[in-house]
Amino acid sequence: MQNVQFWGETLRLLVELAATAAFALAGIMEAARKRLDAVGVCVVGFLTAFGGGTLRDLLLDQRPFFWVRHVEMLWGVLALCVLAMLFLRHRHFDLTEKAIQWPDAMGLGLFTATGVHQALLLELPALVAVLMGLITGVFGGVLRDVVCNEIPTAFHDHRPYAVCAFAGGWVYVGLWQADAPGWLALIACVTVTAGLRGLALWRNWQLPAWRT
Amino acid sequence: MQNVQFWGETLRLLVELAATAAFALAGIMEAARKRLDAVGVCVVGFLTAFGGGTLRDLLLDQRPFFWVRHVEMLWGVLALCVLAMLFLRHRHFDLTEKAIQWPDAMGLGLFTATGVHQALLLELPALVAVLMGLITGVFGGVLRDVVCNEIPTAFHDHRPYAVCAFAGGWVYVGLWQADAPGWLALIACVTVTAGLRGLALWRNWQLPAWRT
Amino acid sequence: MQNVQFWGETLRLLVELAATAAFALAGIMEAARKRLDAVGVCVVGFLTAFGGGTLRDLLLDQRPFFWVRHVEMLWGVLALCVLAMLFLRHRHFDLTEKAIQWPDAMGLGLFTATGVHQALLLELPALVAVLMGLITGVFGGVLRDVVCNEIPTAFHDHRPYAVCAFAGGWVYVGLWQADAPGWLALIACVTVTAGLRGLALWRNWQLPAWRT
Repeated sequence: MQNVQFWGETLRLLVELAATAAFALAGIMEAARKRLDAVGVCVVGFLTAFGGGTLRDLLLDQRPFFWVRHVEMLWGVLALCVLAMLFLRHRHFDLTEKAIQWPDAMGLGLFTATGVHQALLLELPALVAVLMGLITGVFGGVLRDVVCNEIPTAFHDHRPYAVCAFAGGWVYVGLWQADAPGWLALIACVTVTAGLRGLALWRNWQLPAWRT
Repeated sequence: MQNVQFWGETLRLLVELAATAAFALAGIMEAARKRLDAVGVCVVGFLTAFGGGTLRDLLLDQRPFFWVRHVEMLWGVLALCVLAMLFLRHRHFDLTEKAIQWPDAMGLGLFTATGVHQALLLELPALVAVLMGLITGVFGGVLRDVVCNEIPTAFHDHRPYAVCAFAGGWVYVGLWQADAPGWLALIACVTVTAGLRGLALWRNWQLPAWRT
Repeated sequence: MQNVQFWGETLRLLVELAATAAFALAGIMEAARKRLDAVGVCVVGFLTAFGGGTLRDLLLDQRPFFWVRHVEMLWGVLALCVLAMLFLRHRHFDLTEKAIQWPDAMGLGLFTATGVHQALLLELPALVAVLMGLITGVFGGVLRDVVCNEIPTAFHDHRPYAVCAFAGGWVYVGLWQADAPGWLALIACVTVTAGLRGLALWRNWQLPAWRT
């Protein structure tokens, strides 16, 4: 049993690391496209990787931030930025984007679950908890696009992203209120979020647009 | 006397609801103009309606946020977003903008008064209190424009908006320091702010611009 | 000895005032270039002067903000905005930019030292402290550019700015951990930051860009 728990923790950690790297890479590539300098690449990388969680902790008034508790993640993203500047070229971007799709989708689910969990621990209402999950998962990318002077992709590319996190968040809330064990809620939230995201990409689902 | 207080409270609540709806609608229409998808419309609607008050509470370190205490307002704005996507069309925008001018102006006054009041309760200096009122009333729209990748209208359309709130805020501070009753300060602040705003729109007042 | 301390304090205050004025002027000129109205000029001036320190205090959960403790600085920046609108013309901008280069560079050093110091007092890790110094020194300008709908200059002009503050921040951390007296760490941080910035401008150093 302890063995199972150990493997569960390790798996969770691996997903978290892969997802953080995927988020940071998405930021780094956006910065490269905008021809930012080395400072810009690093800042946008950090902002994309840690911005959502930091905004959630600000709103929930939680300290210390998770990147203060785990300073090694800051060093890791910094190293990733340097490595990307040395070895990643524009011609690799398409491939990299393909490669990070799955870690990104699973990270969206994991970060959403973390945000919902933290809000539920503070006994906030269900809708607020789901919104906190959404912010954790989605607002890193939003901050990246705002700093890069773009309308956030999450708000206008018509491909479901935040909506998947919204659904996953409600799954987490439902299982929590049904007193399901934490690992089950976590797995269900990640599965639903990443599954919906995968389906949406595969079937090319489109969000409703404003009808003129 | 209790009767008067009851009607006062009811009136205040009505103004607050109308103003929040007006703010949300301004965000929704801006999102529609920018051709955002359903997610973008909802997020920009929320940001415009609740962004200013949330930023004030962040700066003043007040929790829980008012939309956590009144979750029904979150549901209301969500419903408004859905209804707008179903029924509001581009050809209705001019009319809607006319219709929300007064609730928007009164909301500017009411939100300013709320912000000033909260800062004064924390015994902050008068100028800081007025700035907090300004932020409450104006920064929802600023956040909307930043996310929609525009220079904030409040900073460059040369029509007095923040200035009206600034004046109204000082009226509130003055009456507070003269120990006037709370309802009087509130009504005076709303009247001055909304009145100045109405006058400015009617007489087409222009803010001074930079002389080259 | 008391005499020395007195002059040290006075010198520090002078640098702080000159730096705040330099930051505010940079914001005011950017706002003028973007043809903002009087409200926009003031808000962008405030944001540039106080944004970095305020963001740091938000992240470190410190209250009251320094501009609440020193309300006279708010009045000062407000007066500066009014004076600039009355007397500063577009043809003076080149000269003003030259004139504020040194106060800006020294302010970058001083604000960085302040941010690092505050984070170290809270026993945060060294890297986090340096980042807080960076945010204090650099993010006023970042917020200015975001509100003015530009990609932040600090991220794409390829001239070392944040990097100088990064170096200066590590100097402060090193001396602090070596138990050096506070004034020594402060002077060393300001000297290294401002010196590097001056060198970079003089020798026209370029930050590495993304190689395509």
